[in-house]
Amino acid sequence: MGESFGAWVMGNDEKLMKLISSANIACGYHAGDASIMRKTTELAIKNGVAVGAHPGFNDLQGFGRRNMQLSPQEVYDICVYQIGAMFGVVRALGGKLHHVKPHGALYNMAAQDRNLARAIAEATKAIHPDLILYGLSGSFLISEAKAIGLKTASEVFADRTYQNDGTLTPRSQPNALIESTEDAVSQVIMMIEEGSVIATDGQKVSLEADTVCIHGDGKHAVEFAAELRSKLLQREIELKTI
Amino acid sequence: MGESFGAWVMGNDEKLMKLISSANIACGYHAGDASIMRKTTELAIKNGVAVGAHPGFNDLQGFGRRNMQLSPQEVYDICVYQIGAMFGVVRALGGKLHHVKPHGALYNMAAQDRNLARAIAEATKAIHPDLILYGLSGSFLISEAKAIGLKTASEVFADRTYQNDGTLTPRSQPNALIESTEDAVSQVIMMIEEGSVIATDGQKVSLEADTVCIHGDGKHAVEFAAELRSKLLQREIELKTI
Amino acid sequence: MGESFGAWVMGNDEKLMKLISSANIACGYHAGDASIMRKTTELAIKNGVAVGAHPGFNDLQGFGRRNMQLSPQEVYDICVYQIGAMFGVVRALGGKLHHVKPHGALYNMAAQDRNLARAIAEATKAIHPDLILYGLSGSFLISEAKAIGLKTASEVFADRTYQNDGTLTPRSQPNALIESTEDAVSQVIMMIEEGSVIATDGQKVSLEADTVCIHGDGKHAVEFAAELRSKLLQREIELKTI
Amino acid sequence: MGESFGAWVMGNDEKLMKLISSANIACGYHAGDASIMRKTTELAIKNGVAVGAHPGFNDLQGFGRRNMQLSPQEVYDICVYQIGAMFGVVRALGGKLHHVKPHGALYNMAAQDRNLARAIAEATKAIHPDLILYGLSGSFLISEAKAIGLKTASEVFADRTYQNDGTLTPRSQPNALIESTEDAVSQVIMMIEEGSVIATDGQKVSLEADTVCIHGDGKHAVEFAAELRSKLLQREIELKTI
Repeated sequence: MGESFGAWVMGNDEKLMKLISSANIACGYHAGDASIMRKTTELAIKNGVAVGAHPGFNDLQGFGRRNMQLSPQEVYDICVYQIGAMFGVVRALGGKLHHVKPHGALYNMAAQDRNLARAIAEATKAIHPDLILYGLSGSFLISEAKAIGLKTASEVFADRTYQNDGTLTPRSQPNALIESTEDAVSQVIMMIEEGSVIATDGQKVSLEADTVCIHGDGKHAVEFAAELRSKLLQREIELKTI
Repeated sequence: MGESFGAWVMGNDEKLMKLISSANIACGYHAGDASIMRKTTELAIKNGVAVGAHPGFNDLQGFGRRNMQLSPQEVYDICVYQIGAMFGVVRALGGKLHHVKPHGALYNMAAQDRNLARAIAEATKAIHPDLILYGLSGSFLISEAKAIGLKTASEVFADRTYQNDGTLTPRSQPNALIESTEDAVSQVIMMIEEGSVIATDGQKVSLEADTVCIHGDGKHAVEFAAELRSKLLQREIELKTI
Repeated sequence: MGESFGAWVMGNDEKLMKLISSANIACGYHAGDASIMRKTTELAIKNGVAVGAHPGFNDLQGFGRRNMQLSPQEVYDICVYQIGAMFGVVRALGGKLHHVKPHGALYNMAAQDRNLARAIAEATKAIHPDLILYGLSGSFLISEAKAIGLKTASEVFADRTYQNDGTLTPRSQPNALIESTEDAVSQVIMMIEEGSVIATDGQKVSLEADTVCIHGDGKHAVEFAAELRSKLLQREIELKTI
Repeated sequence: MGESFGAWVMGNDEKLMKLISSANIACGYHAGDASIMRKTTELAIKNGVAVGAHPGFNDLQGFGRRNMQLSPQEVYDICVYQIGAMFGVVRALGGKLHHVKPHGALYNMAAQDRNLARAIAEATKAIHPDLILYGLSGSFLISEAKAIGLKTASEVFADRTYQNDGTLTPRSQPNALIESTEDAVSQVIMMIEEGSVIATDGQKVSLEADTVCIHGDGKHAVEFAAELRSKLLQREIELKTI
């Protein structure tokens, strides 16, 4: 959320905010700016949605989705800066920062790199030890955060397929995305109820599903969030903030 | 301080930090970056120097010294963001943010514009009500901060001449700068001991001198700071953080 | 045109390009990036639309619409850079750069400031003496360009009202915009056929109308452009590139 | 050269320009800005030094030295933009752009990646087919440029050691740099006179030495350049622009 920038609009935060329980708000490096952060955080607070910092690489043109080779120290520094800025924005509105979720290439690189994951976890703890780190289920983001005593939320993806090692099928492969809303909802329900997912090769893989990611910049994000929310409620799965 | 950026070095923070009692550290908009902020704040804490946020315009190429027409709301937002980021950096190092001083064109514009001054004061208070706002003695920065209950420090300049209304002689005029170290030190001593300064037209003008500004990017900043410190101590003027 | 940036889309260049005869393409400072510039220029060439460089202030967050105090030398430099970049993009596609139109706050400031206008004209001429400078009818942009021997195109605005001195009514005033398509079209036809416009105080003011500006980021830009084009053709006013 | 930025100074271009025959001038992405580019190019022309564009990644904070994962199309686009901007700056000064040398991480990545090398070569040719591409001797930058008919200059490094495959020893390894001026000069002379270099494992490796790189941001760049120039002249090796 909050991935507009200056005069440019992205996503439909106003509608989506009514359908979710926690929001990852861009912090001005890969998207968002000081004014957008304030407006988006106001919207989240108004809707009772938990506010998370969504730090990314300083690559506005690439939307933080291009890998950049930063040292763990550099990653620590840009996370302290961005989480700090978000912390300030929430304070100024009388709210409380709830969690941190790294964005895009930073998220993906850290999921597979112990040192980057540790740097992000340390930066999160340095801002406030009660902050929860959101990371890919089964990845270094979760294990490194736990290792230093942070609370974590294991994240699963509704619209992405999984490989048999529990990682996401890379976007470069043809079957990376789940196009059908029905299939995506079924995958989420199985992940929540059974703690597993069917990988692309047919194997059943275990995972933890504490939080489900919905991309705010997707074309049908609002419709999909509404459908998922409704299906989960039908099955008496309660939506709440960790 | 902290006005280096990436691979570019500015000033001599290591030496200067030994000679001052409070530091204004750039927050990544007009200068500084996340790593420089960490290093400079570490240095300040190590030297027992009070840490201040030094927010500026988002104009790296112009070093925040070119006037930009922002609305009070935009100024509020960029200050919350930058002070928040600095707040985070200091927290992460186990320190405490002490004050806020706007930078360059933002400082000068707000000194003369009640609405911009109020926006900066509100942003400061929103991050923490105990933060002290540093502003030009006699300017809107001081009066607006007081109006909302903030503590303030009235700032005077050692190396700049004053006009008979208490404002600085603009840099565009030939007599704006005091080149001689001796004259600059004398002006500071008079400002502290008598609460006044001799304006360019010879009139004596009253002002308050809570803090003396030394520009860290000046060529002789270290020598000048050492000389001033020594002269003040000779006259038994104690240097301490407000 | 070409005012998208990275992952952010602005305007509907594909449709609008079919309705116009010359395009002002953002050059990466206030909007646009290297890839967007290539794509937009390709689109223009494909549609036989004359390509212009649209240099602006280096203020992505403010979309180049916030006044910035740059010296004439700085304005010259940023124009040479941006026009040069655009010149390169067009060359690489086998096309030819046709004109230059400054953007937003740079356009408005230069229209009223002889030195900034001269700086822009000199930068344009320095890249290629055959480039045409587009500027507000009756402004310094036109007179300074003529003074150094550049060809010019006097620009008029369809959707803005005029003051009795021939300047646009500032956006801060309530009657600055013409909301009705019909009124806007009528104003354009009068400007073209009679060389004059009715100012907000009822006076008739002379101007030259070589080119009509349509803002690509407006909500109804495509509909308006289609309507205007159709009405002009009905009156046998030919649309062509200067 | 021209790797200052805004208020920040890097290198000693004025002195170094007297000692070299061709300059690679930063184009505003990894360093440099529109004003610095003009000043540096003026200096080069005044000293009869051939002007080259030095395009890099859009990573000011990392000085373009951090790997970024861009597609070949993106690399093509950022090179067209930056070479175009430089082309404009040189034209505006009545000079002629002579060559292109990619910078930092872009240079190193392209040396080993055929597609990136091809993208840079194509961008260079698209701006002007007479431009010479400077690249690491024996790398894809040279072979891809030749494949599309560009003139090339094979570059060697005075202060870096080589591996037995002709690549530079990575900076992360302890013996990557040659600290002694004498050793560096000897290496250059051997590379020029014998067309070979002694690799870190003692093997003699062939290479072509059309141009010798001196880093303008090095501490002793001026002294080293003077020494190398003097030693080459002693051996009657003429310094000239390709």
